[in-house]
Amino acid sequence: MRLPLLAAVCCALLASAARPHCAAAAKARHFKWEISNMFWSPDCEEKVVIGINGQFPGPTIRARAGDTIHVELKNALHTEGVVIHWHGIRQIGTPWMDGTAAISQCAINPEETFTYRFVVDKPGTYFYHGHYGMQRAAGLYGSLIVDVAEGEEEPFKYDGELNLLLSDWYHESIHTQMVALSSKPLRWIGEPQFNCSMAAAHTPGATQCAAVNRQCAPVVLPVQPNKTYRLRVASTTSLASLNLAIGNHKMTVVEADGNYVDPFAADDIDIYSGDSYSVLLTTDQDPSSNYWVSVGVRGRLPKTAPALAVLNYRPNRASKLPALAPPVTPAWDDYEHSKAFTFRIRARAGTPPPPATADRRIELLNTQNRMDGRTKWSINNVSMVLPATPYLGSLKLGLKSTLAAARPAETFSRGYDVRQPPANPNTTAGDNVYVLAYNTTVDVVLQNANALAHNVSEVHPWHLHGHDFWVLGYGEGPYRGDAADEARLNLRDPPLRNTAVIFPYGWTALRFVADNPGVWAFHCHIEPHLHMGMGVVFAEAVDRVGKVPKEAVSCGATASALMNGDHL
Amino acid sequence: MRLPLLAAVCCALLASAARPHCAAAAKARHFKWEISNMFWSPDCEEKVVIGINGQFPGPTIRARAGDTIHVELKNALHTEGVVIHWHGIRQIGTPWMDGTAAISQCAINPEETFTYRFVVDKPGTYFYHGHYGMQRAAGLYGSLIVDVAEGEEEPFKYDGELNLLLSDWYHESIHTQMVALSSKPLRWIGEPQFNCSMAAAHTPGATQCAAVNRQCAPVVLPVQPNKTYRLRVASTTSLASLNLAIGNHKMTVVEADGNYVDPFAADDIDIYSGDSYSVLLTTDQDPSSNYWVSVGVRGRLPKTAPALAVLNYRPNRASKLPALAPPVTPAWDDYEHSKAFTFRIRARAGTPPPPATADRRIELLNTQNRMDGRTKWSINNVSMVLPATPYLGSLKLGLKSTLAAARPAETFSRGYDVRQPPANPNTTAGDNVYVLAYNTTVDVVLQNANALAHNVSEVHPWHLHGHDFWVLGYGEGPYRGDAADEARLNLRDPPLRNTAVIFPYGWTALRFVADNPGVWAFHCHIEPHLHMGMGVVFAEAVDRVGKVPKEAVSCGATASALMNGDHL
Repeated sequence: MRLPLLAAVCCALLASAARPHCAAAAKARHFKWEISNMFWSPDCEEKVVIGINGQFPGPTIRARAGDTIHVELKNALHTEGVVIHWHGIRQIGTPWMDGTAAISQCAINPEETFTYRFVVDKPGTYFYHGHYGMQRAAGLYGSLIVDVAEGEEEPFKYDGELNLLLSDWYHESIHTQMVALSSKPLRWIGEPQFNCSMAAAHTPGATQCAAVNRQCAPVVLPVQPNKTYRLRVASTTSLASLNLAIGNHKMTVVEADGNYVDPFAADDIDIYSGDSYSVLLTTDQDPSSNYWVSVGVRGRLPKTAPALAVLNYRPNRASKLPALAPPVTPAWDDYEHSKAFTFRIRARAGTPPPPATADRRIELLNTQNRMDGRTKWSINNVSMVLPATPYLGSLKLGLKSTLAAARPAETFSRGYDVRQPPANPNTTAGDNVYVLAYNTTVDVVLQNANALAHNVSEVHPWHLHGHDFWVLGYGEGPYRGDAADEARLNLRDPPLRNTAVIFPYGWTALRFVADNPGVWAFHCHIEPHLHMGMGVVFAEAVDRVGKVPKEAVSCGATASALMNGDHL
Repeated sequence: MRLPLLAAVCCALLASAARPHCAAAAKARHFKWEISNMFWSPDCEEKVVIGINGQFPGPTIRARAGDTIHVELKNALHTEGVVIHWHGIRQIGTPWMDGTAAISQCAINPEETFTYRFVVDKPGTYFYHGHYGMQRAAGLYGSLIVDVAEGEEEPFKYDGELNLLLSDWYHESIHTQMVALSSKPLRWIGEPQFNCSMAAAHTPGATQCAAVNRQCAPVVLPVQPNKTYRLRVASTTSLASLNLAIGNHKMTVVEADGNYVDPFAADDIDIYSGDSYSVLLTTDQDPSSNYWVSVGVRGRLPKTAPALAVLNYRPNRASKLPALAPPVTPAWDDYEHSKAFTFRIRARAGTPPPPATADRRIELLNTQNRMDGRTKWSINNVSMVLPATPYLGSLKLGLKSTLAAARPAETFSRGYDVRQPPANPNTTAGDNVYVLAYNTTVDVVLQNANALAHNVSEVHPWHLHGHDFWVLGYGEGPYRGDAADEARLNLRDPPLRNTAVIFPYGWTALRFVADNPGVWAFHCHIEPHLHMGMGVVFAEAVDRVGKVPKEAVSCGATASALMNGDHL
């Protein structure tokens, strides 16, 4: 079987037009959200989604760098907890606001209200999403756009903005998906039958069902001719890696994950789950036509047509079919194309360079394994299982009972054959806590390997909370840490990012400075992979974490300790 | 529309054979349960159910009167809390073990373990089930059978026992059902298409699909000829009222809801959700044949065939088709038949009689209403909404912020026209807390009325936690509390029960003594109706409640108060 981990079948790629929100001068921005299940038809077939204030996707947050965001969040789900992670926001000084259930806080129980308060310190293209179970895959996400501070300027010019938040959508509920992923053996959820997708809606001859349902109407990106636009694109997919191309238009990549990059031109861009980009787009083509935007699948044989959006040259009607066919995105398994794109991403001049050397190197082998008959992902042969008590509370209070005393391995066997399925496929569960000393420079080498089936090695986009990291380099095959590997590292202009990919059978080296006390998740951003254990936790200078609000950790053993008189 | 509240369509009636559990002499009985979602095929179509230790329905608990049950329950659901209510067990002295989320305890969060410890003080036929959101309807239930204490004897003789736990099953998930019920307007979940049911499996000419799937194989009740059996029957249906008949066999009703009743013979018995019965059955028919047991729907036009089980006269093979057709249960709307059955239930001689007079009478009008465009059920025009903090914690700590200061109405307008839709269909939400003084005798009159649609009044089985009550009587039309109504009350031999029905347009009068300090739910046992607000809470002598374990109320405002130094 080629795709042993495709637990749910991609049935539509979603490109949601963000609703722009007027940026005011105020520094505190207040939002009141209610999270609930509701009926919605993301691909014209009605299902239950998790919505915010009756919207799917959630409302766009727009702020300026330095602003404080206040989100008073009421959980109106019936029996499920909820949290919101602010993806890309480093939460400097507020690790309890990171919104990762069982790590930075307790899930917010039904009928409870929790207020997120945090500073968006850096301009960029971000998003937010659920971070409990697989709730992101249930549609719990939205855009978070941070403009430069009042009086400052972006290092590039544009006349207008467009925003696309990309996702994928599955017809089975996340509850069914989670049961399937946890089954013995792992269960494939059958491909749903349906005839209506955003692609179909604007493809000549296909069913025009989108026309009757606003919820699945194709996204329209309205532009004026002969202008330059900043197109913000982010991906909150559950599973799919994507590629975006615009008919007859080149793009200039200028931002990645909230960091400026050395501008470069591209015909198409790869976007992995957890990534965000800004590209500049000049509307210099025949203005009498509209143009297709195609979003295709990378890294897995796609089971669905590309998602299509319309670049609508005004005053043409949005419904005017483009003269050209939709651009064809690269073949799903053209990894050389993907690597060429990824390797071109370099820091813009002026980006702080990494420290020249690291104090510590943590090498993380990514393997697919089995545990009690279930399929798991493991890091150095330990599959992460989240505890009832959030790590932040346990570590801040020094609770002995909730986390293992032993620390996970810093490396893996040098002789491990990354080209073969694991010789020992059995794995164990653990909390995977790496303790980082304050202000040390940490290198992480992510090592990819063969999965359980022969000749399968997948792409994994790893996302770090609480930090940007420098992406120092990539290599093929096993990392050896020798001079040749060292020579591959880029210490001159490595990009700062919060998400980095490992390619099949390869490795990726990252560096960051442990200067943000907190407890930070670091994990594959593919929702089923995280659910199956593909992550670790960095406990970073927890003794320097400020006073954690009780309401953030009022559950499990932390609650018991606080009731018994312990203090945070 | 005739059935405006049938939110989900009954697609199979389930009759689950309980697995008998050997009664030992020990007084403490320990169980270790893990609750998780899992795939199961209750009607041969695979869906997600909530199972216990990988079983559906959950394991049968069998104990002797006076035993202490210990259930160490781990919540292995991914994002949902859970609780278990021990239906019919009065929890004398342990109101925090009643297992009602937001009332007697906080929902147990994922990965957490909570241990239920309580005494089963009275022999009888009970069951347990989830009591959070609509989790009971997801399959979270099982039997709880309490035998007489060692050395004591039942007041009737039998040679063997049979046990049937009846339920209904819907193809939409409870999450979808809850969204549908909360939608504006109320949403009807379409009737699922399927061709395989337990009925079909043993009906000549129907699909034999059950034969290939043990999970939906028909229930077989094995008996020897010329013996007397005690058949225990309980109903944990989400919605359906049921009637059970056995081909060619009469039944003698001897127990209702864990209380002995004056024995009487019946051709068929009505069983509402929340009810339990024991009937004696003598196998005095032609032993060369097997016999069908039919379970049909009452009170709503059935959309599904009756469930069938096989009374298997050994040594006939269980698969031997009965010679006779399945018995036909009464027409769904033959309320006279239902009333005749219900009115025949009287206490067995020796049952404690009710106090001759009551100290207080609470009259509860049951109406269907609207709130913000949603359909609700209201009691005296207030629809119950459960808070984030459990009532028991709030009331024990005297928290002012969590519950309304105003108490709900003790009665409703004498002029209310129960035969018409509510003149004012608008309702409000509330916590519906009635405060009861210790050892007072309380009468409750439940008044049925017309729903929102003309000429619709439904049956509602009301279930009281923490108590049995005497069912003093029933009346047609509006209760007036005059001499004629008083004359209808039976103070001589009213049955003790924990569930009592109100018939369309009628009233039912109950009496109980408030001698069990605690906070007790009193509600319609139809799962969607409770979800839509059809309940109240009795706060009974809360000052006399013993020390509530912190872990039971470690959430919401109770947790905050305890962290701030309050004591339970």
